[in-house]
Amino acid sequence: MAASAPSSSGGEADPNSTNLRPPGSSYDAWCGVAHGCTRKLGMKICGFLQKNNSLEERSRIVSSLKERTARTLLSCDNVGGDVRFRRTETDFSNLFARDLLPAKNGEEPTMQFLLEVVEILTSYIRKTFDRSTKVLDFHHPHQLLEGMEGFNLELSEQPESLEQILVDCRDTLKYGVRTGHPRFFNQLSTGLDIVGLAGEWLTSTANTNMFTYEIAPVFVLMEQLTLKKMREIIGWPDGEGDGIFSPGGAISNMYSVMIARYKFFPEVKTKGMAAAPRLVLFTSELSHYSIKKASAALGFGTENLILLNTDERGRVIPADLEAKVKEARQKGYVPMYVNATAGTTVYGAFDPINEIADICEKYNMWLHVDGAWGGGLLMSRKHRHKLNGVERANSVTWNPHKMMGVPLQCSAILVRERGVLQGCNSMCAGYLFQPDKQYDVTYDTGDKAIQCGRHVDIFKFWLMWKAKGTVGFEQHIDKCLDLSAYLYNKIKHREGFQMVFDGEVAPKIKAMMMESGTTMVGYQPQGDKVNFFRMVISNAAATRSDIDFLVEEIERLGHDL
Amino acid sequence: MAASAPSSSGGEADPNSTNLRPPGSSYDAWCGVAHGCTRKLGMKICGFLQKNNSLEERSRIVSSLKERTARTLLSCDNVGGDVRFRRTETDFSNLFARDLLPAKNGEEPTMQFLLEVVEILTSYIRKTFDRSTKVLDFHHPHQLLEGMEGFNLELSEQPESLEQILVDCRDTLKYGVRTGHPRFFNQLSTGLDIVGLAGEWLTSTANTNMFTYEIAPVFVLMEQLTLKKMREIIGWPDGEGDGIFSPGGAISNMYSVMIARYKFFPEVKTKGMAAAPRLVLFTSELSHYSIKKASAALGFGTENLILLNTDERGRVIPADLEAKVKEARQKGYVPMYVNATAGTTVYGAFDPINEIADICEKYNMWLHVDGAWGGGLLMSRKHRHKLNGVERANSVTWNPHKMMGVPLQCSAILVRERGVLQGCNSMCAGYLFQPDKQYDVTYDTGDKAIQCGRHVDIFKFWLMWKAKGTVGFEQHIDKCLDLSAYLYNKIKHREGFQMVFDGEVAPKIKAMMMESGTTMVGYQPQGDKVNFFRMVISNAAATRSDIDFLVEEIERLGHDL
Repeated sequence: MAASAPSSSGGEADPNSTNLRPPGSSYDAWCGVAHGCTRKLGMKICGFLQKNNSLEERSRIVSSLKERTARTLLSCDNVGGDVRFRRTETDFSNLFARDLLPAKNGEEPTMQFLLEVVEILTSYIRKTFDRSTKVLDFHHPHQLLEGMEGFNLELSEQPESLEQILVDCRDTLKYGVRTGHPRFFNQLSTGLDIVGLAGEWLTSTANTNMFTYEIAPVFVLMEQLTLKKMREIIGWPDGEGDGIFSPGGAISNMYSVMIARYKFFPEVKTKGMAAAPRLVLFTSELSHYSIKKASAALGFGTENLILLNTDERGRVIPADLEAKVKEARQKGYVPMYVNATAGTTVYGAFDPINEIADICEKYNMWLHVDGAWGGGLLMSRKHRHKLNGVERANSVTWNPHKMMGVPLQCSAILVRERGVLQGCNSMCAGYLFQPDKQYDVTYDTGDKAIQCGRHVDIFKFWLMWKAKGTVGFEQHIDKCLDLSAYLYNKIKHREGFQMVFDGEVAPKIKAMMMESGTTMVGYQPQGDKVNFFRMVISNAAATRSDIDFLVEEIERLGHDL
Repeated sequence: MAASAPSSSGGEADPNSTNLRPPGSSYDAWCGVAHGCTRKLGMKICGFLQKNNSLEERSRIVSSLKERTARTLLSCDNVGGDVRFRRTETDFSNLFARDLLPAKNGEEPTMQFLLEVVEILTSYIRKTFDRSTKVLDFHHPHQLLEGMEGFNLELSEQPESLEQILVDCRDTLKYGVRTGHPRFFNQLSTGLDIVGLAGEWLTSTANTNMFTYEIAPVFVLMEQLTLKKMREIIGWPDGEGDGIFSPGGAISNMYSVMIARYKFFPEVKTKGMAAAPRLVLFTSELSHYSIKKASAALGFGTENLILLNTDERGRVIPADLEAKVKEARQKGYVPMYVNATAGTTVYGAFDPINEIADICEKYNMWLHVDGAWGGGLLMSRKHRHKLNGVERANSVTWNPHKMMGVPLQCSAILVRERGVLQGCNSMCAGYLFQPDKQYDVTYDTGDKAIQCGRHVDIFKFWLMWKAKGTVGFEQHIDKCLDLSAYLYNKIKHREGFQMVFDGEVAPKIKAMMMESGTTMVGYQPQGDKVNFFRMVISNAAATRSDIDFLVEEIERLGHDL
């Protein structure tokens, strides 16, 4: 196989024309040595040389290179005389997307381009875990829209060079937010798990779709086994039941309402809501707003979602549920569904599932547990008691992409009774789910979903589980809850921190925090309480020192308010 | 900075204990040379050496290496005496997930692990485009579940070594389907775009969420600009309107029904379907089943979705629509919504949008165009006439992950009128969408969505658009349609190919095709037609020779039937 230069036309370039460096430079000499080993290897090595040259370490590396090669390697230059590989040092300014695979001779530029991207990504990953870097470099929308130097968001008619594409990749990361930074506490999903990340890279390379076993055999089976394991952990006998991974907790919660309706009023599927009496749903006043979105979308109406009062710890008061169920029945409505939250979005409160389950059984209502946030605690023998009674639920939402640190997105809806998920959503599309396939078509999952195509969300989670083991997830959860207790005690005993009565303090501190970029934590009002910070601990990278830092930083930024 | 060996405990290992090769071997000698340049560089080079050794090219490369290093490089070994980097050759059997970042000293094993994964992925990519490889290596579910050699899908209590994790990655790809293979014609989403893939790798590394500008500033703006561009291409004045990327065409279509209902009967959001009269929806008998799923999920009922007759080319007959609208009105129902399909799932038929739009205007109905499959034709000046009238639609579904070759998932719902998407879904969650943020919060998109968290689907598409330019997408579409015409003419004039009247032929050929793994194409019955093959052309890698191959292969496999 002859070596060939990457060329923008796909044709063969003159063997000497693409060597942009003066012949005999020490860089080339070094490359010559490296290439002396084997062509494939040499390509990669030069790829990395090129990469390093284009990064910030450039000057250091180049000078180090020149010095050492001049001293030690020039003598090797002519041995073997294998100079043809020099041309693989890649000038991306003359390469375009059309030169990559499947283009003729596209393999070499493709590999060079992907390795360059990987260098950008690994450099970003290193910085993400480096506490001396900022969490973000904040810019207002109008600043980014006007265009930063060399970074223009506008789409163009004509192709841009791969060099520009690589610049765009770097700048996209530069102006983004490092959600894996040890001091990012802003969202329920934080952290950057390396094995999970590797899983995502593989998933996107496989680029397939979950609807049939035919085109995603391994992923479909992984999903099936993982869902069964999750059901076992919930406590359903033999892990029996059903479930599916969905695009986020809101959709998982929406599934639960759809399935409950199908269970009690299957005729709604064909005849619409007109076929059912007036149905009412119940959820905590502090529950996630997706229950309300589902009520609106599915045709119940948000007024038929009844909000339940909570105690001082943010937990649903079961007596309030029972009173409201009775009241609804007296009005002639049909109480159908109760959502108990395991880990509310702001307080992290756990509703008392057993007491709620008693009421659901008494009044024949569907019990859903929204454990999008708190479901991860089921992995911990020490903390799973907070979800006591979850095995009595008819369905459970559980987002591994939150407390378990799986990369976004990874959310499961789990159902105790087999068949209702399929019954609810099945439309029997003949072009996808042919009954006369040569394999067991019960593995085709597409007809259970409200989606048709479905992203592969399982692999990263499966791979992390393999790599950490069940015990590894348990350790992670226990560590997060330890840190949370640490923060609680720290604030409790700290002078100068007290209940904030001025609702403008938190937004002001947050604004300064984002400008300084040192850390990120969310705030919000709730009920009659003014704006306060919501501290989220789910990042495997966070330590006590990061908690200390956050507290100091809030104090520092708020000093002059 | 001193070099350190990857160690499973996080502590410092003895500098010599992890060198598993005999001292003075040519491999080490070569590494010593490479490492002589600079540490960072040296690590990477050894990473690749290690990688190549563990792949199938192992023996070839190792022997080539030995030969060449013995000849040319040994003399360099002692110059500089920089042997400390030899230890970076990584033994993954003693490394675990807990040794990776954020672990202390986790940077080196993290980089080695990720580079090893990248080697697996790039090797897969090369094979994907290699026509001498199979499209798939088919196994039945029970075979994979029983466990292939070294590949066990079961999750375990205890962590597995990174070596096993890497084996799992290889095997996951090995037993999967190469959807980017030039001879994969099985789904509407095919191909593996390298720039799009790079975009996905970056997206998963950024690991953020689309709901607020705060944590996804660049991606939110990219989405906004890209949606505007798509609306311009549809033909809405100045690209005005609204839209959002959703998890697939089925959800995009569901959005269209929700928005239409909100536009005509906003009180349904709060009061439920009981607040509206009996609403009916219309769609082609050949349209995608997601319209039916949406009718069931949103509380209309599938019986209130009226199917329209199609002509011999699979297009809706406008007179049939008008007759059915009149009939519904006579019954006292309210015709609310019509879906016109631009590219049906099986035939690829385009409904006559202008004629349908006339009827929608006349009877005051919402017009949605489902261009999940055919929307890509809007990029082609030559072929966009098939969607003439699309600018009259109230909403459009357009999946760049289908004909435009963007990696999964990438689907947009576009809406002509501003405000209805937000009005329909807004629940004003205070903890996410605080009005007192320091930036312009109209950029926060979360409250428009039925999801809460939302995967970043925009970046890969934006990056591909930059890299190809609008003209690049146009060329791709034109090429696909040329190939399609080529196939049509080839079949038409080919002896031996004729109308198949036996519905069992296609499933049998498909089963043999999957066992042989040489190519993949889907089949299905439709209406009164027996099982037939559905040929999809959206793969940038497919050429006329692949079409030829498919036809020959069908003939070969079907020879003895």
